[in-house]
Amino acid sequence: MRDFLPSEKTRRERVLAVIRDRYRAHGFDEIETPVMEDHARLHAGIGGDNEKLAFNILKRGLDADAVRDAAEDQGALSDLGLRYDLTVPLARFYATHRAQLPTVFRSLQMAPVWRAERPQKGRYRQFVQSDIDVIGDASFRAEAELITATLDAIDALGLPGVTVRINDRRILDSLLDHFGFAVEERPGVLITIDKLDKIGPAGVAAELRDRGVTPAAVDGFEAYLSALAPAATFAGDAIRAVLPEGVGAEGVENLLAIAEAVGAGRDSAPFEFDPFLVRGMGYYTGTIFELAHPSVGYSLGGGGRYDGMIGRFLGQDVPAVGFSIGFERIVDLLEQDDSDAAPAVVLVHDKDVAVATLVALKTALVSEGVRVRLEQRTKNLKSLLERAAADGYTSFATVSAGARREDLELKPLG
Amino acid sequence: MRDFLPSEKTRRERVLAVIRDRYRAHGFDEIETPVMEDHARLHAGIGGDNEKLAFNILKRGLDADAVRDAAEDQGALSDLGLRYDLTVPLARFYATHRAQLPTVFRSLQMAPVWRAERPQKGRYRQFVQSDIDVIGDASFRAEAELITATLDAIDALGLPGVTVRINDRRILDSLLDHFGFAVEERPGVLITIDKLDKIGPAGVAAELRDRGVTPAAVDGFEAYLSALAPAATFAGDAIRAVLPEGVGAEGVENLLAIAEAVGAGRDSAPFEFDPFLVRGMGYYTGTIFELAHPSVGYSLGGGGRYDGMIGRFLGQDVPAVGFSIGFERIVDLLEQDDSDAAPAVVLVHDKDVAVATLVALKTALVSEGVRVRLEQRTKNLKSLLERAAADGYTSFATVSAGARREDLELKPLG
Repeated sequence: MRDFLPSEKTRRERVLAVIRDRYRAHGFDEIETPVMEDHARLHAGIGGDNEKLAFNILKRGLDADAVRDAAEDQGALSDLGLRYDLTVPLARFYATHRAQLPTVFRSLQMAPVWRAERPQKGRYRQFVQSDIDVIGDASFRAEAELITATLDAIDALGLPGVTVRINDRRILDSLLDHFGFAVEERPGVLITIDKLDKIGPAGVAAELRDRGVTPAAVDGFEAYLSALAPAATFAGDAIRAVLPEGVGAEGVENLLAIAEAVGAGRDSAPFEFDPFLVRGMGYYTGTIFELAHPSVGYSLGGGGRYDGMIGRFLGQDVPAVGFSIGFERIVDLLEQDDSDAAPAVVLVHDKDVAVATLVALKTALVSEGVRVRLEQRTKNLKSLLERAAADGYTSFATVSAGARREDLELKPLG
Repeated sequence: MRDFLPSEKTRRERVLAVIRDRYRAHGFDEIETPVMEDHARLHAGIGGDNEKLAFNILKRGLDADAVRDAAEDQGALSDLGLRYDLTVPLARFYATHRAQLPTVFRSLQMAPVWRAERPQKGRYRQFVQSDIDVIGDASFRAEAELITATLDAIDALGLPGVTVRINDRRILDSLLDHFGFAVEERPGVLITIDKLDKIGPAGVAAELRDRGVTPAAVDGFEAYLSALAPAATFAGDAIRAVLPEGVGAEGVENLLAIAEAVGAGRDSAPFEFDPFLVRGMGYYTGTIFELAHPSVGYSLGGGGRYDGMIGRFLGQDVPAVGFSIGFERIVDLLEQDDSDAAPAVVLVHDKDVAVATLVALKTALVSEGVRVRLEQRTKNLKSLLERAAADGYTSFATVSAGARREDLELKPLG
């Protein structure tokens, strides 16, 4: 877990403000839920592997006997936990407040989540997620709105060149069906296929054989993978050419419709078809997508349709689709851009200048829209000004006793 | 703990943005710390009564024996806890990062804290605190900056009429000295004096007698309290007239200097001297103050000087003074003001309108600076539009198949 010093905190708040502004413009309504959820809800199987990484809150008021009794089943020590994602809280929120929400609810959440990860580069135990979700719309209009809004936010952040890698779980299902993988083998097969980028076709085939899945299916699938060339364009013919004849027709039509709709609102709709995009969560049912950027090997975000999941809380099926952007990764990518246009002035004063004079000058500048820091002169004025410049201050002025606003001579810093 | 629906969340983010903008203009630098701190640090005696209200995190990887061994001393079940204030994390942050911070560090924190309070009106288990602190400035310049910045923020929020009730722990000490309370009695005496507003002079005297403090001191103090009239103005003569001759001279000079400095930067510096303002925390050493508003009986914030406390983490004395505004109370006070000037349009469409048409219209409006929500027409159009109006939408337009931007006829909502 990290402390954020002022310059980093400023950058983070600026990125959050841009994302919030863009998503809000696209009709997404921000909500907030408490950081803690019921222990049982966090461990209901929706969170996948993340459930194991939850921080649990020690139950209050346990007596010694209760602790002893909980030695073999520690679940009794905890009734609350910190959320590890924003999807479980959203499902609970929607089930609780549905009557007060629009029929199609476009949710925005930007908030921290916690996972007890082992410390490693780029993994944090507390990190911000930025999720938008459309609940209550079964049509591809929802995907088109999510992707359009996210591309607009990414544009506004100044990250040109992103692409949307997209697939549909129904295409994957149809593909596995085509090669004859048994239904009960498929969850494991998908886990292996997800590694294709890293281990290649031969690696996938070897791992599938290790898993002991239907040999004929593996043989056919390996031959197909080895002969494959990616779709040259995001057009129906090119996409269909990548897939065996007749595979995933419904999913392909859906992807083309999404791309057409997104393209109607933007100069560029940078889609890329990836029939082997899996995305790990078990709850996806349709479209799945990831945001890629040429400068990094990992995705900058992703999401998909999860029509069955909200229903588990509500006892009634509700279609839903979400897009989570990797806030921390985006902040890291933007790290170089630390510009802040607002004028900011350091007022350097000697010890004998009256505090009333300083406050009067400071508030006069503040009311002109300037950010102001007071600094009592030290022997090392240079280092004092260098630090101020690093903190985003753009100019300084020396204050003498009794000075007025018109006496201040602003000089540029650095 | 509360969920925030869109209209409430929007209001909260707006208030946060105003406070952030004003404090930043006044030279305060925002920082952020993780929500969890070491259990030992949270229970080191700085947090006062709040320490008992901390949510503790269950240690991970405990085996059954370790749980059994912890039955009598549950401290071993937890190595982390959720912060219950922003002062303990600030002290730890400052001790860690001092070398990278300016000599006088003006900190801003706006973040949630957690306390296991019993549910009651106006008390929440998760709530946002908004703290500014000046670390490294022993002079009253720090108080003047804190109070000036906070009054500016309150003005910007649109809450006219606040006053700053102010006192100095040194005045209280001098007063208790004057009446002959023994040094070891004083912490208890202060707790009782803090109730003066509620129980009056007779109540205070009775409680002090119950506490068994020096009878002659109580008699003298009761007579003083009963004869007392508040200071008519915030001027030296009026303030000194409230206090027994010679009591608290140093503290009074300090308060007058603060008020003069704040007054130099503002048309009105609404100070009110309260010699019985105590504020609960044990760590205060000098100036203490609270923000009062005529519409409510509780304070909207407060703070004071705590010169000894940071030193406990650093092994070296560092002066510090802070002002915490009651974010939740301010949001509640502002609840009526839900205005949002930004234009926001609902596009009502039939099912047969192409999604590409909808996305094109939506993005055209978004690029004009408009917030847009798509709504498929329902039988009850009126209720749909009423909900949109409640969510801050200001107009609507009906979309027919193939419509372009110039075909849209915007009509005001509500």
